Order: sequence, then structure tokens, then C-alpha cells
Amino acid sequence: MMGDDVLKRNVYLDYSATTPVKKEVFEAMVPYYTENFGNPSSIYRYGREAKSVVDKSREIIAGTINASTNEIYFCAGGSEADNWALKGIAEANANKGKHIITSKIEHHAVLHSCEYLETRGFEVTYLDVDEYGMVDLNDLKNAIRKDTILISIMYVNNEVGTVQPIAEIGKIAKENGIYFHTDAVQSYGHIKIDVEKLGVDLMTISSHKIYGPKGVGALYIRKGTKINQFIHGGAQERSMRAGTENLAAIAGFGKAASIADETLDEHRTRLIALRDKMINEISSRIGHVKLNGHPTERHPGNVNFCFEFIEGESLLLLLDNQGIAASSGSACTSGSLDPSHVLMALGLPHEIAHGSLRLTIGDFTTEEDVDYTVEKLVGIVEKLREISPLH
Amino acid sequence: MMGDDVLKRNVYLDYSATTPVKKEVFEAMVPYYTENFGNPSSIYRYGREAKSVVDKSREIIAGTINASTNEIYFCAGGSEADNWALKGIAEANANKGKHIITSKIEHHAVLHSCEYLETRGFEVTYLDVDEYGMVDLNDLKNAIRKDTILISIMYVNNEVGTVQPIAEIGKIAKENGIYFHTDAVQSYGHIKIDVEKLGVDLMTISSHKIYGPKGVGALYIRKGTKINQFIHGGAQERSMRAGTENLAAIAGFGKAASIADETLDEHRTRLIALRDKMINEISSRIGHVKLNGHPTERHPGNVNFCFEFIEGESLLLLLDNQGIAASSGSACTSGSLDPSHVLMALGLPHEIAHGSLRLTIGDFTTEEDVDYTVEKLVGIVEKLREISPLH
Repeated sequence: MMGDDVLKRNVYLDYSATTPVKKEVFEAMVPYYTENFGNPSSIYRYGREAKSVVDKSREIIAGTINASTNEIYFCAGGSEADNWALKGIAEANANKGKHIITSKIEHHAVLHSCEYLETRGFEVTYLDVDEYGMVDLNDLKNAIRKDTILISIMYVNNEVGTVQPIAEIGKIAKENGIYFHTDAVQSYGHIKIDVEKLGVDLMTISSHKIYGPKGVGALYIRKGTKINQFIHGGAQERSMRAGTENLAAIAGFGKAASIADETLDEHRTRLIALRDKMINEISSRIGHVKLNGHPTERHPGNVNFCFEFIEGESLLLLLDNQGIAASSGSACTSGSLDPSHVLMALGLPHEIAHGSLRLTIGDFTTEEDVDYTVEKLVGIVEKLREISPLH
Repeated sequence: MMGDDVLKRNVYLDYSATTPVKKEVFEAMVPYYTENFGNPSSIYRYGREAKSVVDKSREIIAGTINASTNEIYFCAGGSEADNWALKGIAEANANKGKHIITSKIEHHAVLHSCEYLETRGFEVTYLDVDEYGMVDLNDLKNAIRKDTILISIMYVNNEVGTVQPIAEIGKIAKENGIYFHTDAVQSYGHIKIDVEKLGVDLMTISSHKIYGPKGVGALYIRKGTKINQFIHGGAQERSMRAGTENLAAIAGFGKAASIADETLDEHRTRLIALRDKMINEISSRIGHVKLNGHPTERHPGNVNFCFEFIEGESLLLLLDNQGIAASSGSACTSGSLDPSHVLMALGLPHEIAHGSLRLTIGDFTTEEDVDYTVEKLVGIVEKLREISPLH
């Protein structure tokens, strides 16, 4: 095997798929399992204590995005929040119109919710993106109709890391009296977000992408937004989202949000340095590669390349053999052999999109991890190309 | 204050609202936060390890109810599972018919989902119950129409603890070719469940009622059942429920299910003894009381009484002062001053339903807790009646 001179390491480079829970976050959760386990909707002491934990996390998270506490609704995660935003706005505003605008590179939770709504009589325009994954604002303006009720454009793409011009989209939405939802799962904790400056009406955020626990997220809903419930039942979350509050997870989410907010600048600076080092080394040391996504308007930890003549799947397996965890295509979609809808939307030919690799850097990534990964990658690409019939 | 001869204790008697996580369950969760945190849908080592945890829990839970592993779908909890069952079946079978049968004492997650479906063109029959909270099988048979697509009757009522004749209902549903869903959140872990013997097609279960973590539950869906997705997005849960798998919580749910299953008999025996002791003492020591729910077909830990001439709210507050956590009305619904829909359906007069108190016993309840609670309750009821204008 090549690269045996470098000692084998365990290198996790899939932070955009999920992150480990930080120790401080875990410690903030521990009291709420076996001890303070009350149902926050009860009036006795256990319940009041539980409620204050939920309130505190809500306050922290609202503060990180310049929202009011009563605009934050906890739910089970990004997918539920996206479903809620799309279906809840569509149903509540169907009397006004049945047209929705989104993009071709959204997360599946948005795209499949849109496809579902198409079966319920709604019309959806899926905007193209350019070769860097950018939505064209003129395309957006041209797509707006009298019956458009919602624009849903993600803040940062989960696969190629492209950052969309959210504030400009928010301005266009506002000028046209259309609700604007953004899936900010990949930007929250990585880009300073101000819902007022962005002009978003609804925003999806998730805990497990910012070193918090899985199973919890939130939907920001601007005050006055006309939206239906998605999960019906008890009166939790001001009667907007039923289900016993996920106490420990909400406590952890709050802690993770607080850490992410306090360390945002250093986090970004550190990640960008590692990311750019990795991008530069892969570009200079391996031929026939192409960086996917935007060169500068990019998630601070996102590295995504196409390697001509080889399969992403084989790359992943050989990297895994070397202890490196990366992803190919859209990491959340298992078992799919199709090239990702995102890379296809960027206009990449089928055979090249197949050779894509996403390496996402996070707070526990070191410079040595980057060096080790590049070193291994050089050898693996060389070996795969030697045996490739396409090369 | 009365009863000062008894030292103040902390007595939690709201196990039907939520339970503490058992230590063994918590320990089973710990590895999946900071260490083995992988995304189960990824192909590298972290992901494979995560997947095997999810698979193991699925296998355990399937085993506890005599289901196949591919009939268990994890989700965020009981409310989501109820919403999914009701809305997913309704949408997928609307071409066959648009009539649903349920009862007046279902959990709000079922009732409000039904009300939502009524706004989407479905018709719902809400069956009455008798004074003990029992559905009448003849009423059910008479309610069935050619266009009935779903019967949803809860296994055990969360408030008064009444156990419905689920197997008989399952038989009727099957004879008529109608899907049968039961919300088994309050029976799972307390009654031995066999989905084959019960003839249920869909069943809701929840982790945080059986000493597992909050934020995770499951929907059992019998193989071949025609049902739509509820949360659209990624391909998780065999493309039926999108969202990154809640790894640690699923590990905990599996552990909790396994403990509950192994200790079911002793758990029941112990709870029933404490429950009956409490029921007998309250009945004999306090006048003008009425046991709500069925005298024998009853949740092993459920005690629910109406106390004439007093308010449940005041009872709760004075019990809380003595360190006793109980609930009044439907515990999951906060801030409501209306008497519970369940007690009203049992035919209790408004003013008597107001004086209801639910005490639910669990694995950490001791005989001393029961003695202490009865002692305090006797004094509190006496005191409240002294100042009651109704008395």
C-alpha cells in the first residue's frame, strides 16, 4: 500500500454530515436524563425546572440570530423544520396562491416536500444554478408570479458549500410580498446570521451540525407569519409543535449554539486556513481535478473536488481503509448510485460527477489531518487511475 | 401545616407524563455523543458503527412486540408517530374512502390530526365511551361504512388508564378490511404486546414513557400497509422517514425497551400492588371521591380520582408544596383551564371533572412514597374543602 511511511490515523472529514457532541455540550445535557427529567408542560417543580431549561436555550438561540424568543420553535431537526416551513406555509396561504420558488440544489427535505406539494395542487419552479452553484437573482425575479407565496433557497449548500446571496433574495421576496424560507443548517454556526438583515421569514437550523446532539433543531418563524402546524397534538411550543419537549437535547442545542456564537470568528479563520491549504494542495499535487462550488463564496470547512477517470465510491472506500471518513455525493442519502442532484445541476457531465469527493473540515481537524489526507489521497487517486479503463 | 409529623419527601407521581432515564439506559447512550457519533447513512467506519447501533435497537424493539425489524420505523416520538399514522394512511388511501373512526378520549395528537384531516375533506366519527372510558364494540361496528379506511383507538388512556379491547377491535377491523392504528404509548412496557395477536396494522410507541430518552419513538407499520411518508427528505428509515438518525436516543430506546420487556411481569406486579394500595386508601380515608377509569381494566400505575368540591389545580399546587409531583387533566397540555376532554367524555359533570387528580406510579415509587402521598392528600383535601364555597 502507498503512503506506508505515514502512520495510520483516524481522520474524520465529514463535519457537514454530522459532528461529534462537544464535551461541554454533553455535560450540559447530562443533568436532564436521570435527574431533572420533568415534563416542561407540567406545573410542579420538576416541570418548572424543565421549562426554564427550554426557555434558556430558546433565549440563547434567538440571541444568536437577532430574533425574538417567541420566534424560535424547537422541533426534531432540520428535515422536520424544512417540511414544516414548506408544507405549513403552503397550506396556510393556498387561498392567496399556489406557486412556490426553490432551487435545483436544495436539500432533499426541501425538494421532496416541494414534490409532495406538487401532488397536492401546488406549482413549483426549480431555479437553475450557475457552474458554481449560485442562484441568479434575475432568474428569481423572472420566476415570481402573482400567485407566488413562498421562496425557499438554502443559505449554504451542503454538498459543494456555495453561499447564496440570502440578503438580496430576502429583499426581492419582501418587495414582492412573498414569504422567504432559508435552510440555514449548513451556515448556522459558520456564518454570522441576522434574520433582520437577511430579511428571512422562516429559517431552518439544526443542532447536530454545530457540535450539539442529533434529534433537535428549530424553525425560526418571523412574528406575524401565517403558517399551519405540522405536528398536531399537545400545546407545546405555544401550540405550534406538539410532542413532549426534548429537554436534554434542547439544553445541549442551547449550549452548542452559545459556543458556536462565541467562537464564530476564530472558528471561521481556523477552518478557512485548513480548507484553503487542502484545496491548494489537492489542486497542485493531483492533475485532472476540478474544485466544485464557488471559489470564494464558500462554507469555511468545505472541500469538494471531482477527480476525472475515477469513481467517488472507490475513493471513499480506499480513504476509509486509511482511516479517513469523507463523503461522496449527498452524504445524507444512503445507498444511491446516481450522481448527486447538486453536481448535475452545476452542469457536470455524469461521468465526472461520479468521481466527486467531499471533505468537510471541523473544529477537531488538525493541520496534520490535512497533510495526512492529502498524502493518502495523492496515492489513492494515482492507484485508481492506473486501473481505470477511462484513463 | 397539616402532616408536619411526616418528614417532607420528593415524590414523583407523574410517570405517565414522562419518566426519568434509567442509569443503564443512560450508560447505553453515552458512547454515541462524543465518540461514536457517525451518520448511520454514511459508508465509512463511523457510519457503519452507527448503523449497527440503529439496527440493534430496531431488532430489540421488533422482538418486544413480535414484529419484523423492517416493520419498525424510528421517529421523534409519540406525537409524530400518531400524526404520521393518521395523515399517512388518510392520504395514501383517500382513493378508497375518506372516513376515519376514532374515539373521544384519544390523545390530542390523534384528535387534532383527525380535526386537521376534516379540513382536508375527510370525515371522522368520534366514538363515545362508557363511564369507565370503554369503547363499545357495537358502536364501532355500527360506525363502519363502505368508505371507512382507518380505525384509530388508543390501547391505554393516558389520563384515566382504561385499557381498550384492542384484539377485538383488531378483529373487527380485519373482517372489514380497514386499517387499524393504536396509540400504545401508555401500554408499551406495561402490557405484553403481540402485534399479531392484536391484529394492529400501525402502532405508536414512545421511549420517554418507558425510562428511555425523550425525542424518540417509533411507528410499527405492518408489512404491505399502504401509507405515505410524513417527513420528506433523505432516504433514512428505508426512505420512509427523513432526518439523520437520532443515534444516542435510538440506542437508549433500545436499551429501555429491552429492560422493560425483561422485567415486565415483576414491574406489573409491583406497580399494581402500589396502585391498589393507593386507590384503596384514598377511597377509604377521603369522602366524596370517585375513581376515574375502569376498576380492573386499568394501567398498572394509574390512580385517578375526582374530589368533589375542590379544584384540581389547587390540589396540585398544595401537593407540589409537599414535594409531590402529580397532574390534573391531561398532563401534556399546559395552561389549559378547561376540564379534560377525557373526563368530559366519561360523562362527569363539569364541576366534578375540575377536581380531578392523576397520580401515576412507576419503577422508582416506593411504598413509603404512597403512604406519604396519601397522608398529605388527606390533609390537603380536608383543608381545601374547609375553604370551598361549594362544600
